[in-house]
Amino acid sequence: MEELVRDSFTLPGESGYENLTLKLAEKWGADVIRDSDGTQLSDEITNSGYGIYSTLCLIRSDNAWAKQNMDKLQQNFLMSFPVMAEGETVTISPLKGFFREQFKIDNNSNAKEFWQVFDRTTQKEVPLSDWNFDPVSGLVTIKNTQKYHYYTVNFLAIRLWEEISMYNHITNNWGDKEHLMAVEPRYPETQTHILNWLEDWCIQHPSTTVVRFTSMFYNFAWFWSDEKNCRDIFSDWGSYDFTVNPIALREFEKQKGYKMTSEDFINNGKYNQTHNVPSAKYLEWMDFINEFVVSFGKKCVDLVHRYGKKAYVFYDDSWIGIEPYGKRFSEFGFDGLIKCVFSGFEARLCAGAQGVTTKELRLHPYLFPTGLSGEPTFAPGGNPKLDAQKFWQNVRRALLRKPVDRIGLGGYLHLVEPFPDFCDYIEKVTDEFRLLKSFHQSGEPYTIPGKILILTAWGTLRSWTCSGHLHEHPEVDLINIIESLSGLPFEVEFKNFEDIKRDGIGKDVKVVINAGILNSAWSGGEHWKDTKVIEILTEFVANGGGFLGIHEPSACDFSSQFFQLAPLLGVDKDLGTKKCLGKYHYSVRPNHFITAETSDISLPVCEGIFVLNKEVDVLAQKDNTPILTGYCFGKGRSVYFSGYRYGIENTRLFMRAILYAGQNENAIKYYICSNPMTECAYYPSVKKIVVINNSGMIQKTTVQTMEEKTFLVTLKPYDIEIISLN
Amino acid sequence: MEELVRDSFTLPGESGYENLTLKLAEKWGADVIRDSDGTQLSDEITNSGYGIYSTLCLIRSDNAWAKQNMDKLQQNFLMSFPVMAEGETVTISPLKGFFREQFKIDNNSNAKEFWQVFDRTTQKEVPLSDWNFDPVSGLVTIKNTQKYHYYTVNFLAIRLWEEISMYNHITNNWGDKEHLMAVEPRYPETQTHILNWLEDWCIQHPSTTVVRFTSMFYNFAWFWSDEKNCRDIFSDWGSYDFTVNPIALREFEKQKGYKMTSEDFINNGKYNQTHNVPSAKYLEWMDFINEFVVSFGKKCVDLVHRYGKKAYVFYDDSWIGIEPYGKRFSEFGFDGLIKCVFSGFEARLCAGAQGVTTKELRLHPYLFPTGLSGEPTFAPGGNPKLDAQKFWQNVRRALLRKPVDRIGLGGYLHLVEPFPDFCDYIEKVTDEFRLLKSFHQSGEPYTIPGKILILTAWGTLRSWTCSGHLHEHPEVDLINIIESLSGLPFEVEFKNFEDIKRDGIGKDVKVVINAGILNSAWSGGEHWKDTKVIEILTEFVANGGGFLGIHEPSACDFSSQFFQLAPLLGVDKDLGTKKCLGKYHYSVRPNHFITAETSDISLPVCEGIFVLNKEVDVLAQKDNTPILTGYCFGKGRSVYFSGYRYGIENTRLFMRAILYAGQNENAIKYYICSNPMTECAYYPSVKKIVVINNSGMIQKTTVQTMEEKTFLVTLKPYDIEIISLN
Repeated sequence: MEELVRDSFTLPGESGYENLTLKLAEKWGADVIRDSDGTQLSDEITNSGYGIYSTLCLIRSDNAWAKQNMDKLQQNFLMSFPVMAEGETVTISPLKGFFREQFKIDNNSNAKEFWQVFDRTTQKEVPLSDWNFDPVSGLVTIKNTQKYHYYTVNFLAIRLWEEISMYNHITNNWGDKEHLMAVEPRYPETQTHILNWLEDWCIQHPSTTVVRFTSMFYNFAWFWSDEKNCRDIFSDWGSYDFTVNPIALREFEKQKGYKMTSEDFINNGKYNQTHNVPSAKYLEWMDFINEFVVSFGKKCVDLVHRYGKKAYVFYDDSWIGIEPYGKRFSEFGFDGLIKCVFSGFEARLCAGAQGVTTKELRLHPYLFPTGLSGEPTFAPGGNPKLDAQKFWQNVRRALLRKPVDRIGLGGYLHLVEPFPDFCDYIEKVTDEFRLLKSFHQSGEPYTIPGKILILTAWGTLRSWTCSGHLHEHPEVDLINIIESLSGLPFEVEFKNFEDIKRDGIGKDVKVVINAGILNSAWSGGEHWKDTKVIEILTEFVANGGGFLGIHEPSACDFSSQFFQLAPLLGVDKDLGTKKCLGKYHYSVRPNHFITAETSDISLPVCEGIFVLNKEVDVLAQKDNTPILTGYCFGKGRSVYFSGYRYGIENTRLFMRAILYAGQNENAIKYYICSNPMTECAYYPSVKKIVVINNSGMIQKTTVQTMEEKTFLVTLKPYDIEIISLN
Repeated sequence: MEELVRDSFTLPGESGYENLTLKLAEKWGADVIRDSDGTQLSDEITNSGYGIYSTLCLIRSDNAWAKQNMDKLQQNFLMSFPVMAEGETVTISPLKGFFREQFKIDNNSNAKEFWQVFDRTTQKEVPLSDWNFDPVSGLVTIKNTQKYHYYTVNFLAIRLWEEISMYNHITNNWGDKEHLMAVEPRYPETQTHILNWLEDWCIQHPSTTVVRFTSMFYNFAWFWSDEKNCRDIFSDWGSYDFTVNPIALREFEKQKGYKMTSEDFINNGKYNQTHNVPSAKYLEWMDFINEFVVSFGKKCVDLVHRYGKKAYVFYDDSWIGIEPYGKRFSEFGFDGLIKCVFSGFEARLCAGAQGVTTKELRLHPYLFPTGLSGEPTFAPGGNPKLDAQKFWQNVRRALLRKPVDRIGLGGYLHLVEPFPDFCDYIEKVTDEFRLLKSFHQSGEPYTIPGKILILTAWGTLRSWTCSGHLHEHPEVDLINIIESLSGLPFEVEFKNFEDIKRDGIGKDVKVVINAGILNSAWSGGEHWKDTKVIEILTEFVANGGGFLGIHEPSACDFSSQFFQLAPLLGVDKDLGTKKCLGKYHYSVRPNHFITAETSDISLPVCEGIFVLNKEVDVLAQKDNTPILTGYCFGKGRSVYFSGYRYGIENTRLFMRAILYAGQNENAIKYYICSNPMTECAYYPSVKKIVVINNSGMIQKTTVQTMEEKTFLVTLKPYDIEIISLN
């Protein structure tokens, strides 16, 4: 491997371990040392000549001020647990069941202005005159109730404990350590205080070169209950629930001329999870919040800049309202964007953002005794080197396609001492990273011509993500698909239904993907009732485009079919209401381009899938249900997958499906590894092919160039090899 | 076994096998000899002193007349296969894809009066002025079409081939044997002809004692395509599609003051399958048809009676409009009802009908070389004795609970000759049948106090059936449930939503069952939006009633929950739109009354089921999803099954669930076999307990009486034993 400048690495320093810090900084080629949650860097470290990152979370940074300004804490709407009427009156304690250390009822604002009471049995709102809230008892009394109906109260809560502080505190048994509170930056006094505090902080931290905001003002929604066996009431990485409060609600109404009601957020107790189709009103609210976060956020960034420091933002936790894929992101003036990554799609999420100079990945494992599900990592029984290999395998294939500028680690550095093999492996990772970065700096890698358009209800705004990490909702098809795509040689764009209705489908698009279950934001729900959408996609495929549908693509219980694009997919789904309609008896087609390299196809079954006619090629079936089909429609082609889970074999299957749908089969010959356990990227400007082994075993593979030259490579487990074409 | 009069058995006679016929009539104790489809009895048989059944299907009995009256054939609506617009005009050949030997376009009536054309992409009807039907070319031309939209034509077809004739003809390769046609009895000329023909027939068949109508006038819907790999376009045992024709449509409008449109039958291409919730209009149409079938049917029955013969009706094939559980059934004046049976529920279907003197079961296997799926029965490789044992095992347990008057066989008698063990076994079956009948004649068997109410959208009208045989739609939960219930010691009633709204739930009801998938007639679909229904059931359980929910009980995408009765079930289902809402972490409760006898619980998983709170007892789970739960609500109890399939073990589990939900656990002590492979019935008036072995192995079991006496019985495979308490 070539010698490269040993920089672009961020090391978590640790006080009391100054020697270790400096030794590993040297070994891993760090140019920056950072603090971590709960750590402070000693002067010895901050004065060692390295760049210094300091993490700051402005809304929980001055708890003393927050305590004196309890009327300026962050708020949100909650729906009380339903209570059954046993007579003509119902009394509800709205907070019952919620975690009292997180929430209290907002007694400051007028309940009748913001709250709503519903008969959830009839789905009708109870008139204001039929209910009353008593701030003293904290109870809502509803009159004229119907026996056996269930009633709920949508109410405004005040949050007493900033959620990341709460989670760390409880997980780590911090006992009587102070509970941090999140202040609401909409109040002018809060803004003044935050800016003053930040200025003081800048003055007092001259050695800090980069302020790493963690993150801006609003955490993703995370409601806790008082029941230990059901801690999460609601938890969504992309939800805007924590941005709600009386002044924001009033300002919104003034600005837009209409009101956001509590029910717009409560949404029948479902709240607004990112996996669901967002309503037009909710999108307006998001935009309204984004405008505020950018405008006040810019003031903070400007201040940091005035003190000669750079401002980076961490793309997690309090990231709500920042929207790196939103239209205003570049207005912040951030110098850098940092994303923690387990997966390839998260690397692409960071790499693809526009409007910052520096993009950085915080790799896993986090330097912590235990991992996500409590298993040992840096503790007896753990194998952090293997963990690092697996995570790097995910991330590296994405970095073959699109570059970032830096990588780093986080956590408690002293924990790595008993694991020298881990320390050696990270050295190798940093070298591999720098090599890939150097190739990208010379020019982009070869991609197969023809864009892929991923059509969802979110479009660009939720590019390269489906809300949260893959392990949190591994059943979401699209998150698995984008994980596969993150390392494939395709250009990918994310569009929503409004985009394609306004602009059509780009001439450069070869394949449209729609993936997900009924009523998910990923599949599109009610958007499929729009005949314009049907016309555009039908035209696209009829004229030679490719369509890839996964699980319940274009699903909507609307017309004669369940999949609104059934005629072009060649398959549809019976929900049981077509039990008595005959289904075509197919045979599985044995030889096909898509399945040529996959002998045992493993996809989740979607019950009720049936084939429309004899022209449909069933390529695989399970339990007598087709799981993979291909179909020619007009001049185009479609492919249907009954579901999708990320894996090395499935990634190859999926790549072939894209090439088939795009009538691009020939492209598989060039710069594609013959062995699906391996992948490669060709960098024409440096005439190098990078080959990676995605498996824990030795792999042999060949790669062919467009000049029809073939190279044979043997790779050690998880290793990387470079083929020079010079 | 006691000596009983050897009668109540109907033997299929066969010309050319007179000796065999008379020998087996003697062996099996027949008192009646019948003909079968395609067989004729010889004089030697008809004059042998036995009662004689003759099968008659009036609507296809005089094909010469039908040929001369092609304008009086039966009709129905069909929806053409969808055609995509490629420009501003679309031409559709409505019949394309349909089986031309079954259907032709109705050129006689005015297309614009009855047909409709739809843009199925927008779901809007195309105005009459925008389409035209040319009877000469047989094509519909639609103008002002939208490119890429799909268009269909709802049109009236004339049927050229009576479906049972068609099926037998094609299955048996009858070559150029005449195709029988079904005439439409709404035409006065048809009625006159049928009555004249029937009178002639009666005169010419003096030895016939019973006219066995097969059945009345309208077959269940069965649409064929011209594609051999997708023969059935639509097939439903309970559908009224074949009752439609211009005079019926006009008469309906005159009588009711509003029109049935083609779309009321086509229903978006879904037609009106019995498994779906019937619309109010469709129910009105059924009632209108029933009125006609009863009034003209009665004339036929009266005529038969005038000739001193009895009239029985076969409850299958052309049974549409007869409705043995309808309000007019007794008006026919039928003397008997005959049902072919594979299963216990079909025996109960026959046994429970009111308004006829004689109820008869035609047992399986049918005397035919092959069985339902083409496997050998009365052919080399077949084991008809084992088949008979298995079918009789299903039917016998139902006959323990409710009696019928007669049993019989059908088919080609000579086929049994090579199977003497079968002949011996049928002798045993007839003896067992007569013994059970004799016990019933003395009085009803003991049932556990407290009725079971099965709540569906059909109610009484579809008592003891879900449309067709169990093997046709084995995935329908309710058909499996009624099969279990058919042999259990409970009284069962079937009610619909209107019934319970009008009458409430009877004081004698202990447990309500609701079972099925979303939008099925069995679960109830939109009926669950009716808050009156919710109130009634909540009140019932709150006051001590039991509720058993299976699969998607009370499911409707309406209120805060998916199962509208979730609060009383203690479980709900997440369709993926509540992915981010926390779910309660339960542990499976190891010891419970319901699961006490079942170590390995096997129920289909219903994905997305979650538990509402810690009071819910999860009794079994699979793939981390609860599959069986119990919950106390108010003074009552509910039980949830994620799905249900009939089996001996599941029947025991289900019985225990009913007893638990009804707070009736103590009842399991008395007259219930200790060994779940065996079942029993206690006949108090004769002081006998009948014990049956439902398995192919020797079983030992004990039975305890209310006097706390315990009896131990050992039974041979499939055998029966009688305990005398005298």
